[in-house]
Amino acid sequence: MFHTDLHFMKNHFDITMYPVVPGHEITGVVTKVGDNVSGFKAGDRVGVGCIVEACLACDHCCRSEENYCDKLVLTYNGILSDGSITYGGYSEMLVVHQNPMKRHGMLKSGGSLGVVGLGGLGHIAVKFGKAFGLRVTVVSTSPVKEKEAREVLKADDFIVSTDQKQMQAKRRSLDYIIDTVPAKHSLGPLLELLKVNGVLALVAAPDQPIELPSFPLIFGRRTISGSITGSMKETQEMLDLCGEHNITCDIELVSTDGINEALSRLARNDVRYRFVIDIARDSN
Amino acid sequence: MFHTDLHFMKNHFDITMYPVVPGHEITGVVTKVGDNVSGFKAGDRVGVGCIVEACLACDHCCRSEENYCDKLVLTYNGILSDGSITYGGYSEMLVVHQNPMKRHGMLKSGGSLGVVGLGGLGHIAVKFGKAFGLRVTVVSTSPVKEKEAREVLKADDFIVSTDQKQMQAKRRSLDYIIDTVPAKHSLGPLLELLKVNGVLALVAAPDQPIELPSFPLIFGRRTISGSITGSMKETQEMLDLCGEHNITCDIELVSTDGINEALSRLARNDVRYRFVIDIARDSN
Repeated sequence: MFHTDLHFMKNHFDITMYPVVPGHEITGVVTKVGDNVSGFKAGDRVGVGCIVEACLACDHCCRSEENYCDKLVLTYNGILSDGSITYGGYSEMLVVHQNPMKRHGMLKSGGSLGVVGLGGLGHIAVKFGKAFGLRVTVVSTSPVKEKEAREVLKADDFIVSTDQKQMQAKRRSLDYIIDTVPAKHSLGPLLELLKVNGVLALVAAPDQPIELPSFPLIFGRRTISGSITGSMKETQEMLDLCGEHNITCDIELVSTDGINEALSRLARNDVRYRFVIDIARDSN
Repeated sequence: MFHTDLHFMKNHFDITMYPVVPGHEITGVVTKVGDNVSGFKAGDRVGVGCIVEACLACDHCCRSEENYCDKLVLTYNGILSDGSITYGGYSEMLVVHQNPMKRHGMLKSGGSLGVVGLGGLGHIAVKFGKAFGLRVTVVSTSPVKEKEAREVLKADDFIVSTDQKQMQAKRRSLDYIIDTVPAKHSLGPLLELLKVNGVLALVAAPDQPIELPSFPLIFGRRTISGSITGSMKETQEMLDLCGEHNITCDIELVSTDGINEALSRLARNDVRYRFVIDIARDSN
């Protein structure tokens, strides 16, 4: 079905198959398990990410990398192997994060991490960074976020990305950057913040191509890497780590009545830091 | 002097300090050595890359990575620490290559390498690839280059990058890509040729930003990495390897009279594969 990655993108993001029930990242409590289910029982609190099916037979699936399976099916607006369309739900899980941080060696403490964008992904990246013992710098276009970044999220430093002087002063200062900005932007100024050999992990998915100037990449022997949500195995490791370090996501809980208002506020970046829809409350 | 990488780029590429003598990558024979020189003597054949000075004191220089020194001075149109301007020469050395191939583990044989662009850099990348035992695919916009790529350079495969069907058929087939295209282009279609976890090494330096669509990067957990010319240490290793595997660059030798014609042909991509100016012949 998904012949190319671009086709995949088109399928999932451009072509909505109505009726659609949106919403990745769902949490809930198990009410019943099937005969072949092991590891979960009724009453367990569980989460569903953005993937609900993979072939479980290819090389990727066999290496617990089912999140890169060529036949993966997304939680909503996907087509299951039986031909039926998937329907989602609304919630919050943020399984995307620990994957690139582990992969690029950020878990060893002592390095310096820049987190670009202080939203739903960014604020939890700051918390992970601090839990891993990294020196965390928030890079944001909004000077008003500095106080909260430093005082509440315990960031060590804050750079206003539109301030050339600040950007210049922090040149070649970071080992890693996690770029969470979901809009079109240039990677040039961010790459210049990285030390030689530094790594920028792109976790957002802007729908327009990003601008990549070659000079900051080649003259700094820097690397840009992308990754999607973690595998089931990685997600479990990430959740265990959240438990150990008491890392939680800051959310605003809304009822189903409040979805339209929440979406309007989201469009204005007015959310601290993720909206979660309490479906259960409304259905009880 | 070079406050930022972008400033550095500007200094070197936009602002020409006249009189200018262009030309990186010079070979010649030593006629005389200074009192402090060791390792070279009169009569030795030597090469000069695109860097003629570095601080030799910073962390990068101490790790034999003087090519990433913050104070490096390029072979021409650079400003030396004594304030004088550097003048270059014309020749051919191609020291840029072995660096990313070694760094990304391509020297272990068995993998598959795509070489994008079959010019001065591309043709030597194919030769290195074959010497390392890789399966080499040339990716080019020019179908006319297929015969030469396969028969002369011994490439295993050839993809016309503008042919959607061919690109589609080779999706997720390559471990590595070396992108030598010096013009603005999108990395999207190239990234889709890479397997999950594949690496694209950018060795060209387009002066316009490259287009980087996020989806092929994140959905394939792929990596883009840049690097410039190698260090002195790496360059020597590369030359030793060329000697061992008899890797040479295919050139067209021109006299100083022929420079203008050579530049016109270069502008039309009509060169197989590098012009070398024989300064010595003309000066004798």
